[in-house]
Amino acid sequence: MKKVLITTIPFGDKNKLPLDLLEKNGCEYVINPLNKKLTESELVDLVGDFDIIIAGTEPITKKVMDKGKKLKLISRVGIGLDSVDLVAADRKGIKVSYTPDVPAPAVAELTIGLMLSLLRSVHLSNLRMHQGLWNRYFGRRLSEVKIGIIGAGRIGSRVLEHLTGFGKPQILVNDQIVKKDLESKYAITWAEKEEIYESCDIITLHLPLTKLTKNMIRKKHLNKMKHDAIIINTSRGGIINESDLFDVMKSGHLSGAAIDVFEQEPYAGNLRQIENCILTSHMGSMSVDCRTKMEIEATEEVIRFLKGEPLEGLVPAAEYSVQSEGL
Amino acid sequence: MKKVLITTIPFGDKNKLPLDLLEKNGCEYVINPLNKKLTESELVDLVGDFDIIIAGTEPITKKVMDKGKKLKLISRVGIGLDSVDLVAADRKGIKVSYTPDVPAPAVAELTIGLMLSLLRSVHLSNLRMHQGLWNRYFGRRLSEVKIGIIGAGRIGSRVLEHLTGFGKPQILVNDQIVKKDLESKYAITWAEKEEIYESCDIITLHLPLTKLTKNMIRKKHLNKMKHDAIIINTSRGGIINESDLFDVMKSGHLSGAAIDVFEQEPYAGNLRQIENCILTSHMGSMSVDCRTKMEIEATEEVIRFLKGEPLEGLVPAAEYSVQSEGL
Repeated sequence: MKKVLITTIPFGDKNKLPLDLLEKNGCEYVINPLNKKLTESELVDLVGDFDIIIAGTEPITKKVMDKGKKLKLISRVGIGLDSVDLVAADRKGIKVSYTPDVPAPAVAELTIGLMLSLLRSVHLSNLRMHQGLWNRYFGRRLSEVKIGIIGAGRIGSRVLEHLTGFGKPQILVNDQIVKKDLESKYAITWAEKEEIYESCDIITLHLPLTKLTKNMIRKKHLNKMKHDAIIINTSRGGIINESDLFDVMKSGHLSGAAIDVFEQEPYAGNLRQIENCILTSHMGSMSVDCRTKMEIEATEEVIRFLKGEPLEGLVPAAEYSVQSEGL
Repeated sequence: MKKVLITTIPFGDKNKLPLDLLEKNGCEYVINPLNKKLTESELVDLVGDFDIIIAGTEPITKKVMDKGKKLKLISRVGIGLDSVDLVAADRKGIKVSYTPDVPAPAVAELTIGLMLSLLRSVHLSNLRMHQGLWNRYFGRRLSEVKIGIIGAGRIGSRVLEHLTGFGKPQILVNDQIVKKDLESKYAITWAEKEEIYESCDIITLHLPLTKLTKNMIRKKHLNKMKHDAIIINTSRGGIINESDLFDVMKSGHLSGAAIDVFEQEPYAGNLRQIENCILTSHMGSMSVDCRTKMEIEATEEVIRFLKGEPLEGLVPAAEYSVQSEGL
């Protein structure tokens, strides 16, 4: 009987199907007994003789793999691969699968919600009202501002789609590749990151965390942004340097930010002191439908693996190059 | 020299043009000296020998008009007319103008923002994070829920337009009139209010406050709604009975609400105790562009009046019937 360690939580919470699938296929499974995001050392202690990990964003490092002698498959619930040492996995013959398409709809919708909240100061007015204060905040509309989207992949392109119902906002897009299909479908202008930093009213990030994007936005970039600019990160913690963002917002620069992802999760840093920084707890993919679909797909991959069937969600070679070469 | 009382605040704050227009045209003006929403008795005290009021949503009642012997024009910055006694104005020969088209874009965008915040519990996660707690909330996506729009006029129809970029949500719409143009443009189903109350996940109101809509949604209607339904009111206070909403949410029914408008403003009621009720301070029309445009249009109407030119924003007869006959 194969043993599966489910490190991501919640799991099987809104829909039991993934757990049923494991049972029906004769798997013994354990769901993260610490009920919190695991650290590397907690994972090292836990990995034992498990054959498979169904993983969230916990650090599955070489150390973890060294300890997990029987480990043969890591099935990621979600898209980012910054948490998995792909090079080490490759050397040890551990396969890595993921569900890259599934979280996008939920992340993109949350992003639009955060844009509108920030533009209209909903978070501040709500706070004041519950404190008993009636302050009317002036706001801006999407079609009145310039929006900068950095990363036009699965999520960034859905953000573009959602914006089509809001008139004709000016949209600058940055990506490593100029994508002709997006250009023909949406009224966008390709731009360098620097131009987006300097000219946009809303800047939203839809990038993976890699050697190249780590600390991509530091104090000097934040200070170049417009005084009343808004920055949103629903992608990965660490792309915006958190302590720089704190310093810059503390100084009164930027009119707002919304941060869903953090270098260390659960987050306990000083952005909690900044009222006009909306903080959410890595909930980008946490719609019931997307979460359920991710869990089912990641579990089905486990079942395919056990049955010796071809895997459908194997991480492509390009992702390995990103980690090994820092591309 | 004609005297203009500007009761709505803020006014001329983000753009001085309306004040310049008044000065250039030889008007003496006073901006609400109490710097808060005026009550009837405060207006009675203030109205004196003003010829014109540029009004917000303060109660311009018969009593106010009785006292304002020289009053000849009420120029409303905005759309709702529940605050103006049109019948009394008509009898006294006081003209009433408004700017009904201008606030719609800002109100509709705020509404979508509130939907997304409520669906994803952004307000709750933000509160918890600032308190130092990491709670991951499950959410829902727009295309996974059934949306009920009550009132398909200027604002309701823009809400429909914004929703076009979010896949294919199921949308039920209620209006006094079945509007063929909306039906052909958007994938909607016309429905009775009762059906919307009972079957929708999100219910949003885009109605004027009239004798018919006052207290339209009371405890019995709220209790019919789905246990995890969401209700949004960015139209006028008093359409949902506030104390009933408090009781129902206090009991744990409904998963969230967002209320921007109140029977008494500034609001100081007990909904402030309900964490999952987003409260904002009548900010629906408060985008810089819409607010500025409303102020300019209302002021231009004043100038036309002073020059004896035809008025362009006169309130149509149908609005007088609504008040006199309660239609």
